[in-house]
Amino acid sequence: MRNATDPAHHVFAEPAALRRAVRAGDFLGQTSGQCPGYLQGNLVILTAADSEAFLRFCLRNPKPCPVIGVGEPGDPTLPALGAGLDLRSDLPGYRVFRDGAPAERLTDIGALWRDDFVAFVLGCSFSFEHALIRAGIPVRHIEAGGNVPMFVTVLETEAAGPFGGPLVVTLRAFRPADAIRAITLSERYPAAHGAPVHIGDPAQIGITDLGRPDFGDPPVVEPGDMLVFWACGVTPQLAIRRAAPAIAVTHDPGHMLVTDLIAERPT
Amino acid sequence: MRNATDPAHHVFAEPAALRRAVRAGDFLGQTSGQCPGYLQGNLVILTAADSEAFLRFCLRNPKPCPVIGVGEPGDPTLPALGAGLDLRSDLPGYRVFRDGAPAERLTDIGALWRDDFVAFVLGCSFSFEHALIRAGIPVRHIEAGGNVPMFVTVLETEAAGPFGGPLVVTLRAFRPADAIRAITLSERYPAAHGAPVHIGDPAQIGITDLGRPDFGDPPVVEPGDMLVFWACGVTPQLAIRRAAPAIAVTHDPGHMLVTDLIAERPT
Repeated sequence: MRNATDPAHHVFAEPAALRRAVRAGDFLGQTSGQCPGYLQGNLVILTAADSEAFLRFCLRNPKPCPVIGVGEPGDPTLPALGAGLDLRSDLPGYRVFRDGAPAERLTDIGALWRDDFVAFVLGCSFSFEHALIRAGIPVRHIEAGGNVPMFVTVLETEAAGPFGGPLVVTLRAFRPADAIRAITLSERYPAAHGAPVHIGDPAQIGITDLGRPDFGDPPVVEPGDMLVFWACGVTPQLAIRRAAPAIAVTHDPGHMLVTDLIAERPT
Repeated sequence: MRNATDPAHHVFAEPAALRRAVRAGDFLGQTSGQCPGYLQGNLVILTAADSEAFLRFCLRNPKPCPVIGVGEPGDPTLPALGAGLDLRSDLPGYRVFRDGAPAERLTDIGALWRDDFVAFVLGCSFSFEHALIRAGIPVRHIEAGGNVPMFVTVLETEAAGPFGGPLVVTLRAFRPADAIRAITLSERYPAAHGAPVHIGDPAQIGITDLGRPDFGDPPVVEPGDMLVFWACGVTPQLAIRRAAPAIAVTHDPGHMLVTDLIAERPT
């Protein structure tokens, strides 16, 4: 493995080149910062029997679950998202869930693949965060080198079949004028969770201890900051755990699918 | 005057018909609610000598001063805003300012008109407020039958020549999820002051007593509401008073120019 000792040393420019390196076992790291300008996505694989309700769940909850691709049953390719893409091997890490519980952690799922597997790719917040940075809006957790804070809220998703449960949100804090720009900017990125779901008082959505997020790092909040809460891609992960299908496969957190799509979707 | 006793009884559909009635002296009321779907504007008339700096002031402060029309010196028509429009007679009320102080209140300014007068039409918030209502977002001061609260802030405009001074804002309060929609919706109406300039804590922009606005009615705020502040068209009026030109003419508050432009500007 040429760069497995420190994969951060090499930044791939082209998604196809990164995916080739992943497939060859030469890149096993997180994909943040790789292939700047290209859209990255969350992977969810379910059996065809489970996938129909999950697709309805996504369409009913487009902010936490922005669908950017759906495969044909049994087909591990998604040509619309990447030339030559093979979803069994082209992500640097996979998690397998059995009956809703975490099971294997793999770098290739070829041995698990089934003729009735249906793959979903859901958008993530990377392209929106890049847009904030390019607009000169400080993103405090990135400046602090940490992970975005995530909270389980008392807001409920719209259920579909066995898929449902609470909405999970990310928190970013801004000076109020920057919060306004972040709100209007994020609306232009529907594939990156779109406009926020809440601003201001965390207690209104059931967040009682801002310093103790359910996932990620504690927030960095400066005096006078406005709190802004966006729908989070962890929402469908919790929904899958609750639905407890016999088998589900997702990307390993941070180890995303890097697509050939341009991250910037002009309005 | 056919409907001067109760002008609210007749709602004109077509701007040209309303302007004809105004010109004939048959309509002297406020224009709110008239000609639904058509853009209404604030009028500012200055001499050519004063107008150059005022135009720069507007372009430097597009949120409080969205320019939707500028006339040729000495020309009281603005064909781009209305077929047959005559700015000397087609507004139901005018205010004259001399050396920055309020002077006459007129229904026709033909006798005052000068060859060096330059007319400006600036957007107002009506079209944005209609969009909020159509989107099902409650606008509390409208529901209460009152005027929007306006506050002079400690935020400074970008000065140009003698024109400058504080930014004046309007306040509207919403449930947080509605505030997000109001923010993203308002950005689509740059001619109606665009996205807000502040959200949250009024003290951050120098508003110390929310219950005592500088203009308009006290705000209607419900528990849990998010406060949203937009730039206000009173800003250029204060700038003109401070600049104290020998003569300036504006519309009488509420007595707007009703244009032939469609209020909805799609993005």
